[in-house]
Amino acid sequence: MELPDSLKLAVSQLTKIPGVGEKTALRQILTICRWNPEELDVLGKSLSQLSGLKSCTQCGFYCDENLCQVCKEEGRNNTGIVCVVESVTDFIAIERSETFKGTYHILGGVLNPLLGIGPDELKIPQFVERVKRKGINELILAVNPSVEGDATCSYIHQEVPESVEVERIGFGIPMGGNLEYLDSMTISKALENKKRLNK
Amino acid sequence: MELPDSLKLAVSQLTKIPGVGEKTALRQILTICRWNPEELDVLGKSLSQLSGLKSCTQCGFYCDENLCQVCKEEGRNNTGIVCVVESVTDFIAIERSETFKGTYHILGGVLNPLLGIGPDELKIPQFVERVKRKGINELILAVNPSVEGDATCSYIHQEVPESVEVERIGFGIPMGGNLEYLDSMTISKALENKKRLNK
Repeated sequence: MELPDSLKLAVSQLTKIPGVGEKTALRQILTICRWNPEELDVLGKSLSQLSGLKSCTQCGFYCDENLCQVCKEEGRNNTGIVCVVESVTDFIAIERSETFKGTYHILGGVLNPLLGIGPDELKIPQFVERVKRKGINELILAVNPSVEGDATCSYIHQEVPESVEVERIGFGIPMGGNLEYLDSMTISKALENKKRLNK
Repeated sequence: MELPDSLKLAVSQLTKIPGVGEKTALRQILTICRWNPEELDVLGKSLSQLSGLKSCTQCGFYCDENLCQVCKEEGRNNTGIVCVVESVTDFIAIERSETFKGTYHILGGVLNPLLGIGPDELKIPQFVERVKRKGINELILAVNPSVEGDATCSYIHQEVPESVEVERIGFGIPMGGNLEYLDSMTISKALENKKRLNK
């Protein structure tokens, strides 16, 4: 049995999204089919219009205007602290924790010479220029731990002026984690990063 | 931090699909954001156009024209055998097994007086009319086992002409199933439906 063309097209479109298999897509499409035409229209347009989404000229996060919500906030833009992250999703994850009050810089990846990703692809020169121009005095490198991530951190550290304090986020046992199930790399990092308890 | 309006709209639209939570929707939308405008347009339109999807006038399955792919096949339409299913998804599941060669009738649910679902809501009168008009002589009720499903089967059995042979699909242990993990209702049904092995 062949599905109608319009169903097949919709299913094939959904399966292009990572994590959506043929079965999931078909089940979702069959649910969507029962929506009324107006709802379908809103859904379709809400996805098509994503092509008009802009990127913040300062940090690279998605935004409606030139600056994103975070960079627009005077109080955050003037702290002189920038958190460097790999991706939009890492940006959102840190914002969710509600513990960081500066602005961001989204690299869009990590240095990877084998894949041809150099400092220019990650816009590191522009970032260094921003650090100098804006008088940034503190950098928190929230780059994920990996060989490429470590190299990227070293590179950024090298490029920014001496006066800038460069730190990397702490590694260790995640909250709710269990030593029994953690890899030994994490455990050795956690031991390295031990902290004295105050009486 | 607030997400841009266009992202928020797209995420809220995706979360309307059952099984898609806020986190999944956001992750999917952030992937989709990287697609080029043409791809986004095709995706959006493929969903909007689902409102133009027709239903087969004979069985109720989705189709591009008046009859679905199954009802259109002469060889299947003339067998005089109809399989009655609850939903489009059950229809597709049976078609996937490639063991049924007649046509279908999709009820769109089961009788449920408490929810106000009577024979008219399931289009049972039209179906009985089809059985008489088309000279159907065999019905396979592939309705799922439940109190309402059983009642629906009895009702259909009662309504169709005496001459029609009415059967219900077999219940028992599913392939790859394990007695240890099956409920006792299934096991008692499986014992009831035991079958003599031929030497």
